[in-house]
Amino acid sequence: MYLELDGQGPLYDQLTRALKGSILDGRIAAGTQLPPTRELAEELELSRTTVLAAYEQLRAEGFIDGRVGSGSYVSDLQARPSTHHSDTTIAPPSRYAQRAREVRDWDIPRIHRGVRYNLQYCNPLINPALNNAWGRELARAAAYTRLNVSDVAGSHALRKQTCEYLARRRGVQAQPDDVLIVSGTQQAIDLAARVLLNEGDRVVLEEPHYFSAHQALVAHGAELAAVHTDGEGLICDELPPQSPRLIYVTPSHHFPTGAVLSLPRRLELLRYAEQHQCWILEDDYDGEFRYDAHPLAALRALDDGDRVIYVGTFSKVMFGGLRLAYMVLPAALRMDFLNAKYLSDIACPVIEQAALAHFMEDGGFERHLRLARKELKARREALVAGLKEHARDRVEIGDTPAGMHLVVWLRGYDAERCHALTTYAHEHGLGLYPIAPLYLYPPKRQGLLLGYCGLSVAELREAMSLFGHCLDHFEGV
Amino acid sequence: MYLELDGQGPLYDQLTRALKGSILDGRIAAGTQLPPTRELAEELELSRTTVLAAYEQLRAEGFIDGRVGSGSYVSDLQARPSTHHSDTTIAPPSRYAQRAREVRDWDIPRIHRGVRYNLQYCNPLINPALNNAWGRELARAAAYTRLNVSDVAGSHALRKQTCEYLARRRGVQAQPDDVLIVSGTQQAIDLAARVLLNEGDRVVLEEPHYFSAHQALVAHGAELAAVHTDGEGLICDELPPQSPRLIYVTPSHHFPTGAVLSLPRRLELLRYAEQHQCWILEDDYDGEFRYDAHPLAALRALDDGDRVIYVGTFSKVMFGGLRLAYMVLPAALRMDFLNAKYLSDIACPVIEQAALAHFMEDGGFERHLRLARKELKARREALVAGLKEHARDRVEIGDTPAGMHLVVWLRGYDAERCHALTTYAHEHGLGLYPIAPLYLYPPKRQGLLLGYCGLSVAELREAMSLFGHCLDHFEGV
Repeated sequence: MYLELDGQGPLYDQLTRALKGSILDGRIAAGTQLPPTRELAEELELSRTTVLAAYEQLRAEGFIDGRVGSGSYVSDLQARPSTHHSDTTIAPPSRYAQRAREVRDWDIPRIHRGVRYNLQYCNPLINPALNNAWGRELARAAAYTRLNVSDVAGSHALRKQTCEYLARRRGVQAQPDDVLIVSGTQQAIDLAARVLLNEGDRVVLEEPHYFSAHQALVAHGAELAAVHTDGEGLICDELPPQSPRLIYVTPSHHFPTGAVLSLPRRLELLRYAEQHQCWILEDDYDGEFRYDAHPLAALRALDDGDRVIYVGTFSKVMFGGLRLAYMVLPAALRMDFLNAKYLSDIACPVIEQAALAHFMEDGGFERHLRLARKELKARREALVAGLKEHARDRVEIGDTPAGMHLVVWLRGYDAERCHALTTYAHEHGLGLYPIAPLYLYPPKRQGLLLGYCGLSVAELREAMSLFGHCLDHFEGV
Repeated sequence: MYLELDGQGPLYDQLTRALKGSILDGRIAAGTQLPPTRELAEELELSRTTVLAAYEQLRAEGFIDGRVGSGSYVSDLQARPSTHHSDTTIAPPSRYAQRAREVRDWDIPRIHRGVRYNLQYCNPLINPALNNAWGRELARAAAYTRLNVSDVAGSHALRKQTCEYLARRRGVQAQPDDVLIVSGTQQAIDLAARVLLNEGDRVVLEEPHYFSAHQALVAHGAELAAVHTDGEGLICDELPPQSPRLIYVTPSHHFPTGAVLSLPRRLELLRYAEQHQCWILEDDYDGEFRYDAHPLAALRALDDGDRVIYVGTFSKVMFGGLRLAYMVLPAALRMDFLNAKYLSDIACPVIEQAALAHFMEDGGFERHLRLARKELKARREALVAGLKEHARDRVEIGDTPAGMHLVVWLRGYDAERCHALTTYAHEHGLGLYPIAPLYLYPPKRQGLLLGYCGLSVAELREAMSLFGHCLDHFEGV
């Protein structure tokens, strides 16, 4: 019996594989008696135990019949499926998958990897002290936490801490039972789509807007209505007369322009939602980072009609790979969101939740936020000073003293020239991110998002000097 | 000006809230000039700084106009939404949410909390040594891991370790690019539903079957076709003539009966999938725990047609609250699953992935598995011995030497008597779990799932003695 062992892993495994291959290929026909174990062991220079183990395994998997000792016979397996299927017709995937393909194929902003000064946005500040502090919290939590799945809604301790934080910092009054811990803002948006939207339902979102929210909603089958924003946020007069099912907004700090939704507009938006019986998804993605005054109270804090689904995230203020966020749910929707969360992934991981609850309770979270706020403020100031010195009146700074990036509008640039600018900047070591891909319709003016989480104050100064040179290059072009 | 502070949090916050309340109530009308800060400070016995901070905040939020110092005037906010909405008509939730309500309302197996001997299934073994070992891994990972979101597919190191593990233990040959790290088996099922199924598409599942898979598929809108199982697993002759889109199976160890899908049936199932151009979701939820021979190779290992979506979980072999599982994806579906994962929640948490990759690389994972296998084998043997001694021929043991629970079939019990038995057992401190809720149609015979992860060998012996007493009570009833 010719058998070639492939040298991978334990010998009995190699032998099992070799025998299976021969049986499946038909080289050893159905009904054939396999050689006695002792004989095969001698032939292959293996121990008899190895051969016994291989036969035992083949028997367990149904490749051979009969007890070891009384003779082992190759089973009748009938014909196998043919082994090559390059011409197999693949049925189309679901409508969801087809839409997801389309949205994921869009002109996603290019990430400038490997450039010296990368002004990427959306990534939080890296605080090197956090790695160790967080490691201690995790080790502590792992030692003390019951490792079974907890509540679908999330750890009670974390929900309690979240409520205290929301009352203190965001003006939102909530009880732990109103809170659902989710795997990041993206999951919050996805759950909202599942719970609220059928294919074809209308959703209002800001123009421009958060790209991944847009993608998730379109993949879900939503019909989008983009409403323009100005310096006071969403222009409520432009809300559609046909009732949408859902309005997705970023009132504390409009993404990406930074506009703060004014109080009259907040009230108007709440009235509209009531009249049209629709829900508002308030994405408070970085409401915490405000450098002039106290953070503004959330829209949810004004929401007597219980129509605002509030979403806040820990990933943005801690680190992106944490994947923890929270929702405050209107009473009418609570059970539906819990159902959707359970059916999606049961619940969030227990240890990270326990670690975060303790980090908040113990004051580490507030200390981290204070440090981050101070550092981000310094960076923002350096960025603005650099822009004033080097970019001068060639850009208009969309200045809201908040957040983790800044928008500059380019004077006298069309889409083509903006593209040439970012290409030129990339070649000279500067990663710039245009705002245009964050619009549903082509924007009237071109702008850039300058993220300042990834560069130090000194690097930001250098980056702005380089930015000035890039603008010089396009002067009069 | 009458203002009542509520005593919650910093004074300026209290004052801000009190002023807002008065403005929103109309007690302070639009256009009213607020008292100068010094005056209000004296009146309320607060520091002037506190009043200044409150005014500043009100101004920032748009409640008052004018600069502090030159007089502050209450803004015109127009009418607020009315504050009571008990009669608000709530639009119905999505079809998904409605179906989810129905399935989550089903007769879910009652969890016996607080009983002395709880034979609950589905929870993994608690290994007290794991808490500390895992805490060390987490602290290590937190110190060394980049905290940004990693790849949508999951950490490359973890995918590589998963491939090595799959080749070694499950006979599955896969490359890291074929693997997607997901948040538990539940998410794998949910993603498969999204990628493959439109509402109304047919899905085959085993009868009986894993409850939460059933729920997720129905909520998604699938039409279920339940195919019976016997001692060799899914009865392939009963597969429907109309092509389903997806077949959900547990071939290594049918959940819940423990039957192993025989080799001829595996091949027949693969042929059927090819003929009908449908996909197979192989849920290998506890293929690792086999106490007689080596674990059987996975169905995916026989799948030359690339039609099997393989799912394995770390949560079942480590701990439930870990929420990490992995999928091996057919090439034709890879991009669609990555899209769906990204749109659902971007990616899994980075630190737990890094910790697990190192735990696997370092051998800790295999050590943990060996210990768990040994302990579970001892418990299973104690359970079987106890059944033979105390339940005797009143039950039939569905004995596959594998897994984390055991099925016993009750002789001479109908549904009503079975319910009486579990109720009586509960009252006497024994938590028993009937198999009937895991069927789509009422089963012909009654059985129980006896989970042995939560009780020690000694406790299992006592539990079986108590089980014997419970059966005695129903003798001749």
